Amino acid sequence: MAVSQFLDTPHHDGSALYVSNPSPQLGETVQIRLRVPAATLEQSVWVRAMNDGEPVRIQASLESEDGNERWYVANLTMHNPVVNYRWMLDEPGGYRWVTGRGTFERDVTDAGDFRLTTHQPPPEWTSEAVVYQIFPDRFARSQAAGDRPAPDWAVPTEWDAAPTERGRQTAIELFGGDLDGITEHLDYIKDLGPNTLYLTPFFAGNSAHRYDGVDFDNVDPLLGGNEALAQLSESAHEKGIRVIGDITTNHTGAAHNWMQKAHEDPNNPEHDFYYWYGTEDAPMPTDGSEPTADYVSWLGIRSLPKLNWTSKELIHRMIDGPESVIGKWLLPPYNLDGWRIDVANMTGRYRTHDLAHKVARHVVKTVRDINPEGMVVSEHFHDAADDLRGDGWISNMNYSAFTRPVWAWISDTEDIDFLGVPAIIPRRSGKLMVESMLEFDSRYSWATKIRLWNMLGSHDTPRIRTVTNSAAAVEVAAGMLFTYPGVPAFFMGDEGGFTASVGEGGRKTMPWGEIAGGPTEPSRQEQWDTAMHKAYRDLIAMRKSNMALRDGGMRWVFAADNSVGYLRETPDERVLVVIAREPWEGVTLPRYLVSSQPEPLYQSEIGVPVSLNVTDDGLTIGGQGPGVAIWRL
Amino acid sequence: MAVSQFLDTPHHDGSALYVSNPSPQLGETVQIRLRVPAATLEQSVWVRAMNDGEPVRIQASLESEDGNERWYVANLTMHNPVVNYRWMLDEPGGYRWVTGRGTFERDVTDAGDFRLTTHQPPPEWTSEAVVYQIFPDRFARSQAAGDRPAPDWAVPTEWDAAPTERGRQTAIELFGGDLDGITEHLDYIKDLGPNTLYLTPFFAGNSAHRYDGVDFDNVDPLLGGNEALAQLSESAHEKGIRVIGDITTNHTGAAHNWMQKAHEDPNNPEHDFYYWYGTEDAPMPTDGSEPTADYVSWLGIRSLPKLNWTSKELIHRMIDGPESVIGKWLLPPYNLDGWRIDVANMTGRYRTHDLAHKVARHVVKTVRDINPEGMVVSEHFHDAADDLRGDGWISNMNYSAFTRPVWAWISDTEDIDFLGVPAIIPRRSGKLMVESMLEFDSRYSWATKIRLWNMLGSHDTPRIRTVTNSAAAVEVAAGMLFTYPGVPAFFMGDEGGFTASVGEGGRKTMPWGEIAGGPTEPSRQEQWDTAMHKAYRDLIAMRKSNMALRDGGMRWVFAADNSVGYLRETPDERVLVVIAREPWEGVTLPRYLVSSQPEPLYQSEIGVPVSLNVTDDGLTIGGQGPGVAIWRL
Repeated sequence: MAVSQFLDTPHHDGSALYVSNPSPQLGETVQIRLRVPAATLEQSVWVRAMNDGEPVRIQASLESEDGNERWYVANLTMHNPVVNYRWMLDEPGGYRWVTGRGTFERDVTDAGDFRLTTHQPPPEWTSEAVVYQIFPDRFARSQAAGDRPAPDWAVPTEWDAAPTERGRQTAIELFGGDLDGITEHLDYIKDLGPNTLYLTPFFAGNSAHRYDGVDFDNVDPLLGGNEALAQLSESAHEKGIRVIGDITTNHTGAAHNWMQKAHEDPNNPEHDFYYWYGTEDAPMPTDGSEPTADYVSWLGIRSLPKLNWTSKELIHRMIDGPESVIGKWLLPPYNLDGWRIDVANMTGRYRTHDLAHKVARHVVKTVRDINPEGMVVSEHFHDAADDLRGDGWISNMNYSAFTRPVWAWISDTEDIDFLGVPAIIPRRSGKLMVESMLEFDSRYSWATKIRLWNMLGSHDTPRIRTVTNSAAAVEVAAGMLFTYPGVPAFFMGDEGGFTASVGEGGRKTMPWGEIAGGPTEPSRQEQWDTAMHKAYRDLIAMRKSNMALRDGGMRWVFAADNSVGYLRETPDERVLVVIAREPWEGVTLPRYLVSSQPEPLYQSEIGVPVSLNVTDDGLTIGGQGPGVAIWRL
Repeated sequence: MAVSQFLDTPHHDGSALYVSNPSPQLGETVQIRLRVPAATLEQSVWVRAMNDGEPVRIQASLESEDGNERWYVANLTMHNPVVNYRWMLDEPGGYRWVTGRGTFERDVTDAGDFRLTTHQPPPEWTSEAVVYQIFPDRFARSQAAGDRPAPDWAVPTEWDAAPTERGRQTAIELFGGDLDGITEHLDYIKDLGPNTLYLTPFFAGNSAHRYDGVDFDNVDPLLGGNEALAQLSESAHEKGIRVIGDITTNHTGAAHNWMQKAHEDPNNPEHDFYYWYGTEDAPMPTDGSEPTADYVSWLGIRSLPKLNWTSKELIHRMIDGPESVIGKWLLPPYNLDGWRIDVANMTGRYRTHDLAHKVARHVVKTVRDINPEGMVVSEHFHDAADDLRGDGWISNMNYSAFTRPVWAWISDTEDIDFLGVPAIIPRRSGKLMVESMLEFDSRYSWATKIRLWNMLGSHDTPRIRTVTNSAAAVEVAAGMLFTYPGVPAFFMGDEGGFTASVGEGGRKTMPWGEIAGGPTEPSRQEQWDTAMHKAYRDLIAMRKSNMALRDGGMRWVFAADNSVGYLRETPDERVLVVIAREPWEGVTLPRYLVSSQPEPLYQSEIGVPVSLNVTDDGLTIGGQGPGVAIWRL
């Protein structure tokens, strides 16, 4: 149960303290720096960088030192668009590698090497972005929404009802939220703090989630149609809020007008947009399974036919240039700020086809040609780094390097499945969480990693309030969300303590009657947690105003079973974050970390405040918990 | 200093015990198996396989069990050409992943997943291959060799002289070995045991190493010309020995006839075979460095201009089809069995160009179209797995996953640099060696990994005899070489205990006068170690005749600082290998590993025999060392 401390190992990351230019040009020489604790016995320090597939070795020179640490600097030239590198310390008795995955006394593969890339970085505005995810059917109803007749597929449902978690009705319960409803509540969002909306699909489908789109040329009339989107976008932009849409590049709905054309006549160009069983691209299954349709579907779900990206016409219609689906909605009067790409990890991948990177590059080019500041965020639940190599998707919904390790530390449940893994979410030690985060994080360039969308859940997952089974633990997890490197993103209602043990159950309507200042809707059964709302509001405000939390480096400081601590650092500022899921041992850190007196930036109000005492011996952090505390040192 | 034991963790690898077909077709369903120690508390066992970029989960069923272990089986369908997979054990309190890199209580990236591929596997004959590397200028002189005048570049050197290790003469000392000299000594090689010759280049160059080829259409007349190669190939094949050539796809010599044409007239097609400074492909360096020539060279060495694989004509001449350089020498009368590809890791890679995989696939296709059993072995000193994904190079000179970790365990030196790393070769614990080998090995499919060329050195490295500073330690290392998964490959003279602290110093002539049965050459200063020769001969014979050592699975059993042990297993056979660099603690293994009485296959004759006692308590391995012992259990 000892507390592991990490400050006795050398450190490097891609932030301004360590890399002189995070977005260099090809051929540019960048200064990179290594921080080495004073007790280290290094005889020389080197960089091993891969050029054209071969390591070059670059000797680093001592740049500065004091009684606590030494700084080395080396010149790294960007010979290739992506340069992998690691540090080497030659020491008595051997040498050590310093990689993104940690420090090793043995040889390691290149998988954990640091990466610097000449590819265009994520747009600058994402440094201050805080993302609020909205599921339009469930957020808010405008006056007009009540007048629209429900379509045939829908089961109209009372706003106050709980959604059916699993069953025939789950996908078709229509609560009737619309885009004007969102527009009417922008002040609520602005007050809470997010400055970026991510809307799940606004194209018509045969379901309330609309991931089975039938027409990419028009906004669903049920949501208010094209005019409502233009109005929402305009109103949001006036308030300094960006809007990101959601598009399915992996599939369409089975009722999509493309699929109708495909079925009408196999000679129609739309026929080639899909995979048809019994063709060379899609032979009949050999494992004895029976296809659910004559076309290939996403995971065999016949309502979601998979797109075939070998079709040039599909590229033309969907992702190429301003007239394509991807392009059109970024232009006036809609002016979307980018796209979230549904099932990006499977897009373009089928049997012998792997066109995922080609599609990603094309989508990103179309977006950036229209808006150089445009954003493209992939949905990839897994080890996504190879698809975000700098010329692929710009950001990703960061389940693997954030949601999963955080859940696997802070969860307290005996019956919630772990996001597709056939097991209950475990409750592991802080040390294992750190190891997992280090390994997944190490596979991204810093420029990408610091803009991944970190989440504690989404419309596809159980709610964090249920996963942790404690409001205090949610505050702790949110403390991490708003201080960890990356863009904090959360699903509407998390700020009010919404509960759910499956994703579909979490797609609840907002109880506007209970929300302070919330107007148009009646109250209902859901308990709105005003203390949680305040915690989110305070954490968001702190996050947005603090450069170290937005752009600073990331150094793990300690890990206990029940607590972890880390530093976010810029050349001007050092912020210490301590997160405890339960009472723990406490720890004393070196005195030199603090310049004068620590300034508290946040202390738990739902959980327990964590104490910090500065003495001649060091910084003593009390073992209180559950709680989160954030100090400027 | 405790001995780490590994038999208490579940095990899977790609061998016949665990995978029903190592080379399945697309769409084929393969049975994969997991061995679980009896003390494990698994509640269920699953496979997580990646299909189209998304995990599918497959429940495994219990196939058999006894008091010692349980076997689970699952059906894995080859949905993609390469399927990554790992095992999951759901256990009380959490779950564990079983990957090629080991067993983890936390989430891990896909980097260590097992891999199964539908790509054509290495040729079957490589299962029994033992490779003998020959540097033609230094192996043996025929009678005719003495009559050939030395070219202008050469410094004729007496056969008995030691090569200059570093200096102006190093590359140009011509000792005068030739291909007929090799032909005359095939019986020596056959008696020693290797059945595959790898010849460093036989094209004329302006150096004794000939990696600066000037003409790929003819064998160097100094080596006896085309007829001598045809004769060597025919004689070798008659004795059941295959012959592999060596080609530089990364560069040619500066005096190559292509470069002459390129310089004669920029409009000649050969001009496009190279990179020219000041063009878009190769802007002038921006770091202030001065190019050594008007063309780009390998590592700036002007005698080795780099090839530009964007040239279609270069592809045509060098690697496309039977008339190309790659093709021609595989056809009668030369009938080479394949190629070793020099500097494969950099081939096709320069700045924004990365054509390495394209060149690799094209080379392999040309070779296999001519000879389906043809071999292509890359030179890649580093983390090579991404270039051997099944449709790239067929095998690799396995420095990273074998030579380096073994050296870093068994070395005993204070002044030998570690293969390009600016540090002395370390002497680390057995546990660190195992961790490093597991990590590097895990990145290959089993079909590839088991055919990588394992080496204790080559013409480019110090000699193992000098690295270890002990004949007994060389026997230990050789024990590992001939029992570890992969194709054992060694450089001429290692079997006689040749010494050298740098690669160029190791390119010594064979002292035929001292070799039993060696005819035509005088004796010299080199001490020929007949005990070492016998050890190599015995180990090779054992290796070639033992299916478990050739094709069996690989389970690490224990690791101490000074000793490691592992099992090579087929459904019919279990071989235990114990390798000790020094005296150690000894270890007791479970009794059930042995069926009746262990049969010794090899015991140290240079080092110390290692004892094995079977009692009711288990198999007790004595702590003797240095030594190597191999038993059939």
